[in-house]
Formats: sequence, structure tokens, C-alpha cells
Amino acid sequence: NSNMKVFSLNSNRKLAEEIADHIGISLGKCTVTTFSDGEVQINIEESVRGSDVYVVQSTSSPVNQHLMELLIMLDALKRASAKTINVVMPYYGYARQDRKARSREPITAKLVADLIETAGADRVITLDLHAPQIQGFFDGPIDHLQGVPLLSDYFEAKNMDDIIIVSPDHGGVTRARKMADRLKAPIGIIDKRRPRPNVAEVMNIIGNIEGKTAILIDDIIDTAGTITLAANALIENGAKEVYACCTHPVLSGPAIERIENSKIKELVITNSIPLPESKMSDKITQLSVAPLIGEAIIRVHEEQSVSILFD
Amino acid sequence: NSNMKVFSLNSNRKLAEEIADHIGISLGKCTVTTFSDGEVQINIEESVRGSDVYVVQSTSSPVNQHLMELLIMLDALKRASAKTINVVMPYYGYARQDRKARSREPITAKLVADLIETAGADRVITLDLHAPQIQGFFDGPIDHLQGVPLLSDYFEAKNMDDIIIVSPDHGGVTRARKMADRLKAPIGIIDKRRPRPNVAEVMNIIGNIEGKTAILIDDIIDTAGTITLAANALIENGAKEVYACCTHPVLSGPAIERIENSKIKELVITNSIPLPESKMSDKITQLSVAPLIGEAIIRVHEEQSVSILFD
Ligand SMILES: Nc1ncnc2c1ncn2[C@@H]1O[C@H](COP(=O)(O)O)[C@@H](O)[C@H]1O
Ligand SMILES: Nc1ncnc2c1ncn2[C@@H]1O[C@H](COP(=O)(O)O)[C@@H](O)[C@H]1O
Repeated sequence: NSNMKVFSLNSNRKLAEEIADHIGISLGKCTVTTFSDGEVQINIEESVRGSDVYVVQSTSSPVNQHLMELLIMLDALKRASAKTINVVMPYYGYARQDRKARSREPITAKLVADLIETAGADRVITLDLHAPQIQGFFDGPIDHLQGVPLLSDYFEAKNMDDIIIVSPDHGGVTRARKMADRLKAPIGIIDKRRPRPNVAEVMNIIGNIEGKTAILIDDIIDTAGTITLAANALIENGAKEVYACCTHPVLSGPAIERIENSKIKELVITNSIPLPESKMSDKITQLSVAPLIGEAIIRVHEEQSVSILFD
Repeated sequence: NSNMKVFSLNSNRKLAEEIADHIGISLGKCTVTTFSDGEVQINIEESVRGSDVYVVQSTSSPVNQHLMELLIMLDALKRASAKTINVVMPYYGYARQDRKARSREPITAKLVADLIETAGADRVITLDLHAPQIQGFFDGPIDHLQGVPLLSDYFEAKNMDDIIIVSPDHGGVTRARKMADRLKAPIGIIDKRRPRPNVAEVMNIIGNIEGKTAILIDDIIDTAGTITLAANALIENGAKEVYACCTHPVLSGPAIERIENSKIKELVITNSIPLPESKMSDKITQLSVAPLIGEAIIRVHEEQSVSILFD
């Protein structure tokens, strides 16, 4: 680990510490504060000249604050003569704004990629992008890690019989397929359809869930509307019980209340976004991506492929 | 004004409306909201294809939010085929982080310039940058307006006798000189010096203030420490009364309380940053930069020089 330095900004210090522990080094010293008027101030408190620097920051809420912290840190590292600047973004904010769905929309996921490269990033390591196409928004190398193995291993250890992996929408079928392969289970899909304009959506379930333990998988759970409606539809249509899992627990607005009141038995998430005290729930189990990310950093630093970590 | 469109984001809508009024057009239709998780969502609700677009946004507090609104808007305008994209930033946030004063500091004012150009700006119109050198941080054209004429005219109309224009520090002497020229008054300087390390600063006043009406001028008043200490020192050293003025009323933290409790008789500011209800004070007079900026937009659009507006 010669010449490797890992720094944490404000979004996810606990995860950054676990990552550094996994690698076997201490976090680099830097302070991130704000001036009286709210402008971000960053002080790097040790030399980074000639070092391969890894900056851990999720652009989770408050997203604009966390993104600016990252950009300012990249600027400071560049001017301080770091040899390489590697951005470790367990959660990539604005990933859902990844295409023009209507006229005159921005593509903010691409803007964010441009901003990160403009500020000085040489490489990005990230996890479960909302769309894998976002990799192409970067000119430089990007390592795209996957959370499916971690989530699958957790459910595998439960040794449950007769399970089915369910995608809550069409967009997530590939992810559900990957989990199903690992758990040797069949897949199902919630097929939302609006029969006529201005008529409520119908939840049509594709796949045989009768008497089965369903595991819903998604990349992001935000307000938890989709996942809780899906869970309830599964139970109403004969599933024995329903688990849910996701990589990125955004959990904004009514999310926790909805999960508490839903038919979901247990929700399994990762720590790509920290779970504040106010969002803790008996129903939620949080798994750490620190070993996955720590291992990825080691392999990147040694110029080895990272795909072995999730293939 | 064929093909000119002016849009406002969230930082300073009232000023943007005044600017549009001055030009004689209506503001373009766009909505700036946030998703449940705090990500900024922008919808441009009219065609901008082939238009010269002017976007009014101060990167005042919350600075990171306002900056991201601007960058996302620029991305949307670029993708919507605007002919030219002109950023109108009455207040340029992060301008004070304009050099490396210590090792490993960022130069965030330069980063912000790069971000704005990366996102799609063709031109920037701004007002009283903390350091005029920041103009050089942009590759494209920048029009740098000055608030001194507006502030000077206000004091001129008061017809006060025996005035002296005072700079609260060395950095602001050029600005004080400009105001003094317009008001045909002498200048003074507050010369803060620390006689020995770990000994309190001494306020040494350069210039004859005895019995005079002093007008302190600065570009930014933030926590108001500098300006209120300066005002009190002027009174203690024989000035008859003290006025203060600045272009950018950041007024963070204890600013209003300090101003209320100081010897400042009246503080004159502009609306480059809006003054929220909570910061209103009987001591404060706010002048509008809308005519100046509106005129600058008209002249830029007609490809005429703007320097006539403040020379
Ligand atoms: N932060 C956000 N919260 C909710 N919806 C979003 C957010 N960002 C983008 N979107 C919308 O979500 C849609 C993308 O979701 P998807 O179809 O699952 O890829 C787009 O139509 C976006 O307008
Ligand atoms: N938002 C801010 N609030 C207070 N001080 C700042 C801010 N941004 C930068 N600074 C500091 O202010 C100094 C620049 O002020 P000046 O010497 O007046 O140009 C630099 O040393 C910066 O570290």
C-alpha cells in the first residue's frame, strides 16, 4: 500500500473508516467545515505529493453540499500534486436523471460526471449505478461494483425454502436475474399497467408466487412507494412472506413509515448511504460494503481487475 | 430584443423580475423544484431553440444549492439548443477562495468558473468580484460591472458636507479611491496591524477624519466584524458620524446584531443578494442593481460595450 492515501469527506465517514481498516491504513487527515456563510472550506492536513489518493464520498442527501465538498477536495488535491486522484462514490447522486425523458430536460447524471472530471478526478469507483450506461458518461476509467453478491449471500445464509426473486418493475429484471442465479431460484416481475388513461394502475404479477417466500430487489429505495405496493400485492396474491433488499437506502420522505406499515418482513440494505438514527427500524438490516470497496481499492492500486469481486 | 430570453432560478427572483421589467420583457417560464430526496429538478417550459438566453442567479446562501441549480439549468439549455447561454451572476459565491494562501488549499473561485463553463455558459455577466483577477479564471468573455456609481449617487444625493471615504482594509483602497473621485472627497484607510505576535490588533487610521462624515465602503459585508470595528474606531478617533456601504450583503451569523449595536448610522447595500425578512433593519437601505444589470444585458445583446455604465 505504498503511497496510497484514503480520505473521507462528510457524507459517509463511518464507511470510510471501515474501508481504511479493511485496507489496513489510517484515513488521511483533512477537515471539511463551512464558513459562516455556508461556503465549504477544506484543509488537507498532510502531504499528498506523489500519492495515489482515494476520496470516499457518497453524493447522498444533502446532495449539492456533498457534491461540492467532493469537487473542492479534487481541486485541492490536484493543486497539491497528488499523483492520481481516485473518487470512491458508493452512492452516485443524480443517477436517475440519466436521459431526456421530455423536451428540454437536463441530463444531470452526465453533468455530474463532467463536473467530477473537470475538478480533477482520474478514476471513479462506484457501486450499482441506476443505469450501467452512466459509465459511458465518463471519459476516464470507471470501476462499477455490484451489490448483488453481498445481498444474495445474506439471504443464502438464511437457508430459506421455496424462494422467488421479484423485480418491482421492468427496469430491474437483469438485477433480479443475477440474484436468482446465485440463489438458484426462479424470478418474478411486477408488471404495472394502466389499462386506460386516467384509470388506476393495475399490479399484474408475472411468475408463480403462490405459497412462496418472495425477495424483492431494487437498486434504490427512495420514498418506498414502489417497493411497499409491490410487497403488499405479492402477499395479496398468495406469497407466504415478503423480504425486500436494495443497495442504496435513500429512504426520503414517507419511506420509513411506509416500510413499517407494509407487509415487508425484513428490508436488507447496504451502508452506501448512512442510516441516520431517525431512520432506524427493527425491520431494517444494514450490510457493509466496506470489504467490497476496500478490496476494490487494493486491486485498483495493484492494477488488477476488480470484476472478480462480483462475477 | 428579438430572440432574447431571461430566466430566473431560485436565488433572486425579485431582482430577475426587475431586470426583465427594465428590459421590457417577461421572464421565461421554467420551474426549479426539488425531488423528495433533495435533488434539484428543472423544467424549462418554453422553447429556447435559437435564442440568446440570460440566466439570472446569485450563488448566495445556500451556495451549493444555488450553484447546482445554475449548472443544471445550463445543461438543460445547452441540450435544448439555445443559441447563446449567458450567465448573470449578481453575486459570485466562493470568490474569496481565490488563491492558495496556505499549502494544499483549493482555489474554489477558479473551480466554480470551470464548472460554469463546463456546464455550458458562453458568457458571464457579474458584479464587483472580490478580486478582479477572477475574470481571468474564465476562458470565455466576462463582463464585470461595478456598484460604486450606484452607491456614490445615493450619497451624493444626500448633499453631505465634509465627507471622507474610508476603506476598512488595504485590499479595498482602489474601490474607496473610485468612490472618492465621484464624490470629490479625500480617502482614508483603516490600517490594522499586530504589533507583536499574540498581541491584539491595533486600528491605526490613516487620513484626517476629525469632525468629518466618514463613509466606509467594502465589496462584501459577511459577519460584519471588520466594518463595525472600523466604524467604532472612526467615531472613537473623532469622526462626526459614520455611514457604511457595500455591494454584496452576505450578512451571515451575527452580522445584523453587530450592525444594530455599532456606531454605523446607516448601511447602504444593493440587492445582488436578497435581504430576507429576518435581516431587515431600520439602519439598512437597499438599492437596486436591476437598471445597471438590465442595461448591461441590453448592451451585451446589441454587442455594445458595457463599460460606459460604470466608467
Ligand atoms: N431524485 C429523484 N427522485 C425521484 N425521481 C427522480 C429523481 N431524479 C430523477 N427522477 C425521475 O425518475 C425517472 C427515472 O427513473 P427510472 O425510470 O427508474 O430510470 C426520470 O423520469 C426522472 O425524471
Ligand atoms: N466564505 C468565506 N467566509 C470567510 N472567509 C473566507 C470565505 N472564503 C474564503 N475565505 C477566506 O478569506 C480570505 C480571503 O479574504 P481576502 O484576504 O479579503 O481576499 C482567504 O484567506 C480565505 O481563506
